[in-house]
Amino acid sequence: MSLLVVGSVALDSVKTPFGEIKEGLGGSATYFSIAAGCFTKVRLVAVVGEDFPAKHVSFLKSRGVDLRGLSRAKGKTFRWKGFYGDDMNEAKTLRTDLNVFETFRPELPPPYRDTPFVFLANIDPDLQRNVVDQIPDPYLVACDTMNYWISSKPEALRKTLSRVDILFVNEGEARQLAGGSNLLKAARRLLSMGPSTVVIKRGEYGALLFRKDSLFWAPAYPLETVKDPTGAGDSFAGGFMGYLSRRKGLTETRLRRALIYGSIMASFNVEAFSLNRLRKIKREDVERRFRAFRGLVRF
Amino acid sequence: MSLLVVGSVALDSVKTPFGEIKEGLGGSATYFSIAAGCFTKVRLVAVVGEDFPAKHVSFLKSRGVDLRGLSRAKGKTFRWKGFYGDDMNEAKTLRTDLNVFETFRPELPPPYRDTPFVFLANIDPDLQRNVVDQIPDPYLVACDTMNYWISSKPEALRKTLSRVDILFVNEGEARQLAGGSNLLKAARRLLSMGPSTVVIKRGEYGALLFRKDSLFWAPAYPLETVKDPTGAGDSFAGGFMGYLSRRKGLTETRLRRALIYGSIMASFNVEAFSLNRLRKIKREDVERRFRAFRGLVRF
Repeated sequence: MSLLVVGSVALDSVKTPFGEIKEGLGGSATYFSIAAGCFTKVRLVAVVGEDFPAKHVSFLKSRGVDLRGLSRAKGKTFRWKGFYGDDMNEAKTLRTDLNVFETFRPELPPPYRDTPFVFLANIDPDLQRNVVDQIPDPYLVACDTMNYWISSKPEALRKTLSRVDILFVNEGEARQLAGGSNLLKAARRLLSMGPSTVVIKRGEYGALLFRKDSLFWAPAYPLETVKDPTGAGDSFAGGFMGYLSRRKGLTETRLRRALIYGSIMASFNVEAFSLNRLRKIKREDVERRFRAFRGLVRF
Repeated sequence: MSLLVVGSVALDSVKTPFGEIKEGLGGSATYFSIAAGCFTKVRLVAVVGEDFPAKHVSFLKSRGVDLRGLSRAKGKTFRWKGFYGDDMNEAKTLRTDLNVFETFRPELPPPYRDTPFVFLANIDPDLQRNVVDQIPDPYLVACDTMNYWISSKPEALRKTLSRVDILFVNEGEARQLAGGSNLLKAARRLLSMGPSTVVIKRGEYGALLFRKDSLFWAPAYPLETVKDPTGAGDSFAGGFMGYLSRRKGLTETRLRRALIYGSIMASFNVEAFSLNRLRKIKREDVERRFRAFRGLVRF
């Protein structure tokens, strides 16, 4: 079934201890679309500037991404510049040029308004809610957020959370949003804010899936090569939502497998800069890693 | 089958954000013995001073610990004083009084010399090797170590590693000992130093079991209450070795389950100060948590 993502398309310049890339294709909606595209048809809503390279548009099209929602505005494309130190866990931002993204007001093309599965990538929570308002009857709405919105727009974010089914956050964001250091208590507090499922991402330590009466613990795929963590969270959400949106039905088992697929897509993503690894991945590569995950936790 | 532990018996004064204890029963051999005692008969080799409270001896005896190897020396018992900050991941030492432990030279009582399963807790690697020398034909030898020995006695430690089957380290120690940040590569380097199995403990993130051709990922039991992490590593090793020593045979499945039992005993231990939680644990509590671990990773 179709899956909608609203987020950013960007040009990223990233340096890590293992190399660098200048103005590579990036952005939350991009990583999400390519990861989810392994499973389903993705409808993308984002904005780029007049300078956005045609080759990136061709690439997205070639992967089957529906670009009717990609608008081109006067000005330059969103650019981000950052680097990772030795621990590779946290990006240090050197420069953010929002450019056309600064005035982005997502407007869904009419054919998108019946999309059953919706992912609101990390944008202003007021805009996230505005997107939900444009879809009369979504089957499932998920969102991501970040420390910036948690501290600067807590009220707007709470309103958005009351409208979503699944929340994706990393460990630090979960603690910040819930206001407490114990992760179990934090997850319970987040569940009380609206979502019926909370996904807490922990990078190389895996991810947790919290629901009212259950808890699932997914490992991260152990890697010898981690070149660039940029986009890992969005690839994770892409794998998760992509798998889930293949059909309706939100059983515990399907949600758990979705978490594994999220973990798999994130693991591929960090193996190379930009989308260089993810763009080569075929469904059989994904399934091979799925079997490896089974072997990793069997006892 | 019987299981030998050589390590410390101490009196610990610990403060955490959740309370404090003064001169509580502690020490690596103590935590190990009580955790392993859920599964098998433990022979303990350690030293205490003249001031060691009789009630602690009675408690250890009541739990079936074989104390023929516990010697009482002139002087005071080893004391440690420390605290944990909000993150509870690392102890800050305020004071260490080695006392009788300073001149501890473990001598095995003759009946101990046929013990098949041996655990060398975190002591001077030269002493660890000396213990192995006293056992003509051990079935399995495991050891723990710490950053202090890794940096101060690297050669002695390497010699010890060439004599052990299983190495227990935490994540930071693994990286330090192997000299590199990637955990997968670090584990491979540690395996090349002698042990056929390397256990890497990651606190609230679980533990990894590395062997030449396999990797197993165990979760940590998610807890709402973590009062005092002191002794978690030794309780972990105790659960692991206790389960394993019930009979000979080191299959992959048994090693994986041993890791789960290690994780379980560590999870009980941190729920209270000193051995206050561990001392109340019955085998059925352990099995209940074992089933919960299964539910945690099933997908």
